[in-house]
Amino acid sequence: MADKNDAPQNTEITPQSKNFSQWYLDVVLRAELADYTEVKGCMAIRPYGYAIWELITQALDRRIKATGHVNAYFPLFIPSSLLMKEKEHVAGFAPQVAWVTKGGDEELAEPLVVRPTSEAIIGTLYAKWIKSWRDLPVLINQWANVVRWEKVTRPFLRTTEFLWQEGHTAHETAEEAQEETLKILALYKDCLETEMAIPVIDGEKSESEKFAGAARTYSVEALMGDGRALQAGTSHNLGQNFAKAFGIQFQGRDKALQHVWTTSWGMTTRLIGAAIMVHGDDNGLILPPRIAPYQVVIVPIPRGNWQETVLPKAREIKQALEARGIRVTLDDRDSYSPGWKFAEWELRGAPVRIEIGPKDIEKSAVMVARRDTRQKDSLAMDGLADAIAGRLDEIQKALFDRALKFRDEHTTRVSSYDEFKAAMEGRPGFVIAGWCGSADCEARIKADTQATLRNIPFGGAKVTGVCVKCGQPSSGEAWFAKAY
Amino acid sequence: MADKNDAPQNTEITPQSKNFSQWYLDVVLRAELADYTEVKGCMAIRPYGYAIWELITQALDRRIKATGHVNAYFPLFIPSSLLMKEKEHVAGFAPQVAWVTKGGDEELAEPLVVRPTSEAIIGTLYAKWIKSWRDLPVLINQWANVVRWEKVTRPFLRTTEFLWQEGHTAHETAEEAQEETLKILALYKDCLETEMAIPVIDGEKSESEKFAGAARTYSVEALMGDGRALQAGTSHNLGQNFAKAFGIQFQGRDKALQHVWTTSWGMTTRLIGAAIMVHGDDNGLILPPRIAPYQVVIVPIPRGNWQETVLPKAREIKQALEARGIRVTLDDRDSYSPGWKFAEWELRGAPVRIEIGPKDIEKSAVMVARRDTRQKDSLAMDGLADAIAGRLDEIQKALFDRALKFRDEHTTRVSSYDEFKAAMEGRPGFVIAGWCGSADCEARIKADTQATLRNIPFGGAKVTGVCVKCGQPSSGEAWFAKAY
Repeated sequence: MADKNDAPQNTEITPQSKNFSQWYLDVVLRAELADYTEVKGCMAIRPYGYAIWELITQALDRRIKATGHVNAYFPLFIPSSLLMKEKEHVAGFAPQVAWVTKGGDEELAEPLVVRPTSEAIIGTLYAKWIKSWRDLPVLINQWANVVRWEKVTRPFLRTTEFLWQEGHTAHETAEEAQEETLKILALYKDCLETEMAIPVIDGEKSESEKFAGAARTYSVEALMGDGRALQAGTSHNLGQNFAKAFGIQFQGRDKALQHVWTTSWGMTTRLIGAAIMVHGDDNGLILPPRIAPYQVVIVPIPRGNWQETVLPKAREIKQALEARGIRVTLDDRDSYSPGWKFAEWELRGAPVRIEIGPKDIEKSAVMVARRDTRQKDSLAMDGLADAIAGRLDEIQKALFDRALKFRDEHTTRVSSYDEFKAAMEGRPGFVIAGWCGSADCEARIKADTQATLRNIPFGGAKVTGVCVKCGQPSSGEAWFAKAY
Repeated sequence: MADKNDAPQNTEITPQSKNFSQWYLDVVLRAELADYTEVKGCMAIRPYGYAIWELITQALDRRIKATGHVNAYFPLFIPSSLLMKEKEHVAGFAPQVAWVTKGGDEELAEPLVVRPTSEAIIGTLYAKWIKSWRDLPVLINQWANVVRWEKVTRPFLRTTEFLWQEGHTAHETAEEAQEETLKILALYKDCLETEMAIPVIDGEKSESEKFAGAARTYSVEALMGDGRALQAGTSHNLGQNFAKAFGIQFQGRDKALQHVWTTSWGMTTRLIGAAIMVHGDDNGLILPPRIAPYQVVIVPIPRGNWQETVLPKAREIKQALEARGIRVTLDDRDSYSPGWKFAEWELRGAPVRIEIGPKDIEKSAVMVARRDTRQKDSLAMDGLADAIAGRLDEIQKALFDRALKFRDEHTTRVSSYDEFKAAMEGRPGFVIAGWCGSADCEARIKADTQATLRNIPFGGAKVTGVCVKCGQPSSGEAWFAKAY
């Protein structure tokens, strides 16, 4: 029973169909998730955006600890000589680091880089800490800020400074390192799908897209509402590359001195951008209940002596919901109308809105509006907390299902290069195609269509056919997309 | 019933009485709280040290949120022109900042400083966000890393980079800002005393010791085991200084445009250093249960077929304690002897050790050792979780009481300068003396004795007498100490 009068289209934000990119920025700014600052490429994450990040970090940290990892903290600065030790690593990162050349009044003899990632500094410490196979595995994670000097930036998606977690583990054998790399990828997939309602493709990156210094890189890839892909998390098997560069050796069970096998893996504040672009609509943000700072907003309808009648009842409902473990806010500001509040909390993506006025109280009921469907119905006051908890679960599931359906509808399997190019027009989504494994074909595809090879998924049907570009035999299929 | 055989004095760490400073470093390194790195003045916080920090941050964050504050995140970098806007602020911080002069391949037109504190960058955003009295108060906190270029560093106590929280609030009136400043000081005192068992003196800083740019600075000061004071937290009333420097204005209830009143306040990773130095002894760390990563360590005694008999029972106890909300580890490593484990977990400060062997199982009991008193007794298996929970509370209280007693015994009230100087010899503690309020007397006292004015406490008797240095009338007493 949608009520046309009290949920108008939001006119402050650009419609997605008109300009998705502008829609995104409008939502970020207008919902007060982040703001631009006087520092080039650096954003301020405002309280509402940061509250989402706190919920994501809690969900992720819980999983990281449940799999035996512990947190630690390593220095922000890395002496430039350390960054140079792993040659592919420095080639990948040196062009995009910030350099500290002066401390206090003193010019530094050796410049420091602000960490773009921490393999180098952590490598020097693991070389000190690890001596015997008994010290392994080392399973450490860090929550930190990192800096990469970016030319073109966009809030959450690509910023000069961003927040992330970076796991760094060391193992006795190649097999254990590989097992860890894939365990984390599965953990990321679970966190994204369960907590953020974002379906992802998990698979292996091509040689040209892998992390600088890694033996193998795996990723989870999500599809945004404009048909572009976004890399949501990566897990790297670093082989013995960093162990050799930093001298991380241990005495094995056979008494022989040998290098450890390491991994690293990370997810970042760009996940907030992913949540915006996967779930949002023309009225603004739609937050999956599990990462919504307020899962329910209660809006009292100010009729009659509402402050004596409606407000106490609204407070009572708030308490009952909170006792049920639901995050609730009561918007009792008297300087705004209910209609303004409805639009405001739709913009901010609160999953459920409860409206309560004198008539509802007479009927011992409240009006309950879902943000995702914008449908409203009346629910009895009796048993309300359980009903709302159930509805939040429904919304969480509905958002995932909707995103999965959208991805399925925007995933095309092609068998010729003409089909590939046609499919990449406009807002394409994923395109699945045979690939021979050569970097050359991959580069030509990118030059022709802007599409990059996202990954080679583990799951799904693998067709042994021919490369969509060169026609040589392909060992399997790769997923391509235009990407953020 | 202490058993002399299984709790020998630790010989790996220097005794406090021999060299307190070396004792401190030995404990930090040997208990694996932190380690030196290849970056001058920057430490790595190891997992055991970071787990303590996580418990402190949770306790503090809970209090910060319960008082209506929200978290946010602001950029690491501050354009140097912004730091210059508040003239006392820049004079205080410019000599000790790290400068980023190059990003990627590009020399920066305007150097960026790595934040030593965030008033400047936050000020520019508050100027954008605050327009009307309806937007006030703004109550924001940030968890972040900051950098201050220090010449002499010491793990946790003074490092080039450290972790902290920094609150930044804006208010409509001077009275509200002052109320906030003192509310936070009380919150800090409660957190230190309740969670960390560290008694503190709360009071106002002298003019010369206040924060660069503040109208008034308040602090909580604790006494370390060597009789030196440590500033554990500060809360600043910034008046309208930063509001004027950064143009943070709002339209008041009277429609007039006016400047907000701001505060800022912070506590840092140096709190870990305080916990070490307040509670530790010659056997290492002693952790108050509330900030102990493991409140209980279970050490199985490997006799007979212990893996079939003792180990299952030890696991059962672990589960029972965890179900009671207690943090427990079971040290079942078979490469170390029980005696080694006892010494190791004493060094690491675990509040309670449970020993369980075949004889204990026969008696349906376990041996329970307290870290603080090193006393052991036998407790029945039946009702063990409740008994241990009660004991942890006892230990928490005993540590606070012991620290308070130590402080009382190391606090001297003096009435002449000769007495003052005599009291400042050796390991003095706090010295209470009349002070006329002049920076000159304060500076002379410091030059003569190395003692600094810690603060002018709110509580306790205030004697209106004479300044201990110049003999002029004093309006009250100040607390002096040699300080970290």
